[in-house]
Amino acid sequence: MANTDSVKVRVLSLNCWGIRYLSKHCRQRYAMIGHMLCKEEHDIVLLQEVWSEKDYLSLKKKLACSHPYSHYFKSGVIGSGLAIFSVHRIHDTFLFRYSLNGYPYMAHHGDWFGGKAVGMAVLNIGSLTANVYVTHLHAEYCRDKDSYLPHRVVQAWELQQFIRHTSAGADLVILGGDLNMHPQDLGNRLLRSYTGLQDAYLETANFDGCEDGMTLIADNPFINKKELRPFENGIRIDYILFKGSSKTDIYCDFMSTTKGSVPNHPFPYSDHEALTTGLRLETHTQTETGSDRQTKIQDSAAGKLAVLVDIVTEARTEVKVGLHCAERMRYTATRTGVMGLALLFLELAIAAVPWLALGTEQPFPRTSFYLLAALCFAILLTTFLLYIFYTMELKALQGAEDQMRLAVGSLQEKLRGFPLAQPHNAQQRPPEGHEPSALTPEE
Amino acid sequence: MANTDSVKVRVLSLNCWGIRYLSKHCRQRYAMIGHMLCKEEHDIVLLQEVWSEKDYLSLKKKLACSHPYSHYFKSGVIGSGLAIFSVHRIHDTFLFRYSLNGYPYMAHHGDWFGGKAVGMAVLNIGSLTANVYVTHLHAEYCRDKDSYLPHRVVQAWELQQFIRHTSAGADLVILGGDLNMHPQDLGNRLLRSYTGLQDAYLETANFDGCEDGMTLIADNPFINKKELRPFENGIRIDYILFKGSSKTDIYCDFMSTTKGSVPNHPFPYSDHEALTTGLRLETHTQTETGSDRQTKIQDSAAGKLAVLVDIVTEARTEVKVGLHCAERMRYTATRTGVMGLALLFLELAIAAVPWLALGTEQPFPRTSFYLLAALCFAILLTTFLLYIFYTMELKALQGAEDQMRLAVGSLQEKLRGFPLAQPHNAQQRPPEGHEPSALTPEE
Repeated sequence: MANTDSVKVRVLSLNCWGIRYLSKHCRQRYAMIGHMLCKEEHDIVLLQEVWSEKDYLSLKKKLACSHPYSHYFKSGVIGSGLAIFSVHRIHDTFLFRYSLNGYPYMAHHGDWFGGKAVGMAVLNIGSLTANVYVTHLHAEYCRDKDSYLPHRVVQAWELQQFIRHTSAGADLVILGGDLNMHPQDLGNRLLRSYTGLQDAYLETANFDGCEDGMTLIADNPFINKKELRPFENGIRIDYILFKGSSKTDIYCDFMSTTKGSVPNHPFPYSDHEALTTGLRLETHTQTETGSDRQTKIQDSAAGKLAVLVDIVTEARTEVKVGLHCAERMRYTATRTGVMGLALLFLELAIAAVPWLALGTEQPFPRTSFYLLAALCFAILLTTFLLYIFYTMELKALQGAEDQMRLAVGSLQEKLRGFPLAQPHNAQQRPPEGHEPSALTPEE
Repeated sequence: MANTDSVKVRVLSLNCWGIRYLSKHCRQRYAMIGHMLCKEEHDIVLLQEVWSEKDYLSLKKKLACSHPYSHYFKSGVIGSGLAIFSVHRIHDTFLFRYSLNGYPYMAHHGDWFGGKAVGMAVLNIGSLTANVYVTHLHAEYCRDKDSYLPHRVVQAWELQQFIRHTSAGADLVILGGDLNMHPQDLGNRLLRSYTGLQDAYLETANFDGCEDGMTLIADNPFINKKELRPFENGIRIDYILFKGSSKTDIYCDFMSTTKGSVPNHPFPYSDHEALTTGLRLETHTQTETGSDRQTKIQDSAAGKLAVLVDIVTEARTEVKVGLHCAERMRYTATRTGVMGLALLFLELAIAAVPWLALGTEQPFPRTSFYLLAALCFAILLTTFLLYIFYTMELKALQGAEDQMRLAVGSLQEKLRGFPLAQPHNAQQRPPEGHEPSALTPEE
């Protein structure tokens, strides 16, 4: 806190890659991370992939003096992996689990078991209320054929909803995390345009770190260079985003990333680079009311609204692709289940033959008979579970699509409030609802 | 809208009991509900248990003129069952699914499949921003031995969190729904004390309806009187709650419930009674800022804070009971799984005997052998799925417990700001954390 008018806040975000027994040098890296955090004394530390609570507790013990306040967000089977450490008292926390997060049978990808979520902590920095968010979205395993794209888009949609709706009372908003999206990816644009969050890397006055702010780089010894292709040097998928309020202006004084190695250590903190940013908060004397602030988006230029309409429409299209895919998968599961049932009936019919023609010997070898029955039951059980799962996926995708359609309608309605500046692109893309929309009667 | 200074809003909440083919007279009752809504023209209609989207769509068609704006919240396997119809444009919607909601194997109770949630819609009523919430919590099947109590308490906890954090920018807040809790139940007290929501039944100037505002009554022909025992006449479990803001005062002019029958109809709208309330909104000329409003709880009397500490502590105790229960269930699943595995190994050992002593005849009858193997696999699969499920339940309960501990710490810290009025009961009940609390270093 440099002077009475401005407050400085240093924030760190790091994906710790903390899978016990699987991540390389996990224990040693946690020791390094703990040591660094203790020394650097960032105001707010946002960690992802802290999969084991034991590791969180050992970090908490180590940081008891430098960061007396902390929270570990629990969700899913093995946890959300999200943790926050703070110099300032945490008054309140809240967790929102994304409705979609991969598939349980893709166990080698493991995302489903992680229960991905966005964690929120409310802290007071001086007299200011800060809403701090930490998140980790579904990984991208293959950019060319990314079957998880609709899931990630829905996660980005829910993330922006959560931040937008929970931050109305906050003087400043900070989001840190591994978004698993490139800077210009759909979900990223959706998040930034809708919430008004600014990217610390783009806003910083001084930057010291990897080329283009990359956070997954070829120079990191834990990175398999082949997996980065076609981005030979690396990609930027970890972010610190921020925004102020009508009461608070916020500036990014500096930003830095680690560069694939840590001086005097044999390996880096993680396979991701750590991000550090220095924010400067300046409070206004005149204030607006909360409601004014919430309706601020109404006052923003028509151009911005039109861009937002385009982005949400693009997201809707992506979600629809996911919907068709989920419908196809559910259909396949149903068909396989019906075939399993038919096989079972066939078998029962065969079994009934000697029973009907009394005394006739069973023509079917017993071993095969039992194996076939077991197979039928296995098919029926698996397809039943898959059917349930795909139905839930469908409901979540439909829910997001409905919300997006409603949002597009509402944004277009607002656009009509700008008679002079009504842009073409917003009109060219009306909400393409298959069912009658609640928004149409007046349109 | 009677005069220029005050705005009137009529709200209806109804649990529709809309399980197609299972609920009695489902189609006819929907026709009655649609007719009534069309005629009465409530500003906001909050429906629960609209399990089929087809029924929602047919209602939407019927109400196209009276309620042009609507939203159906999708979640879980068969949907959240929540729907909202509005005279005022819905600008935005958001859905929060509760992290706990019963057990999938309790299929006859069905709650798990419903994907219980709280839905939010942002509407503009004149110049005011209204956040309207609709929810339906887990049912209570046996009050004496309610195994779902920890789940319902966690749902109430998450409901209050969701409302508190998303309503900072709203001028008025309305919550309607089937809370499945009696007026003085823990979850209900938690919800009302933490959010400051007021109960329309308790605040109304005029009431016309069932005795004690009951919404599940013995006089309703769809109600099994035996299930109501020991509450012979009925219980009050459906609510309309509301609160204003620093900008808006809100008054309840009247409230009514249906009384177990509908004039000129052979049966009532549902097994629950419908609630209608008339709210009057009055806006201030002077306004506070959003941040002032959010920190308003800080200014409330120490007594209220102490009560809140007590309630949250009570909720924590209940969640801990749930934790022990879930731990026990997971332990049982693990033990059964280990026994299944042991049985499988035993069988394999028996099978290996003739293979090791070449030529010896298999001593074990083949049929039993295969049946036993199938049993082993079934046990292993079931216990594995149960283990995964109980682990997720444990994580969710632990997460809620952590948040409650943090909240109690923060509330106690605020209480210390009232040196004169520090009450005894708040001090007698410190947070009883088994693990070192993040809040203790300064305490």
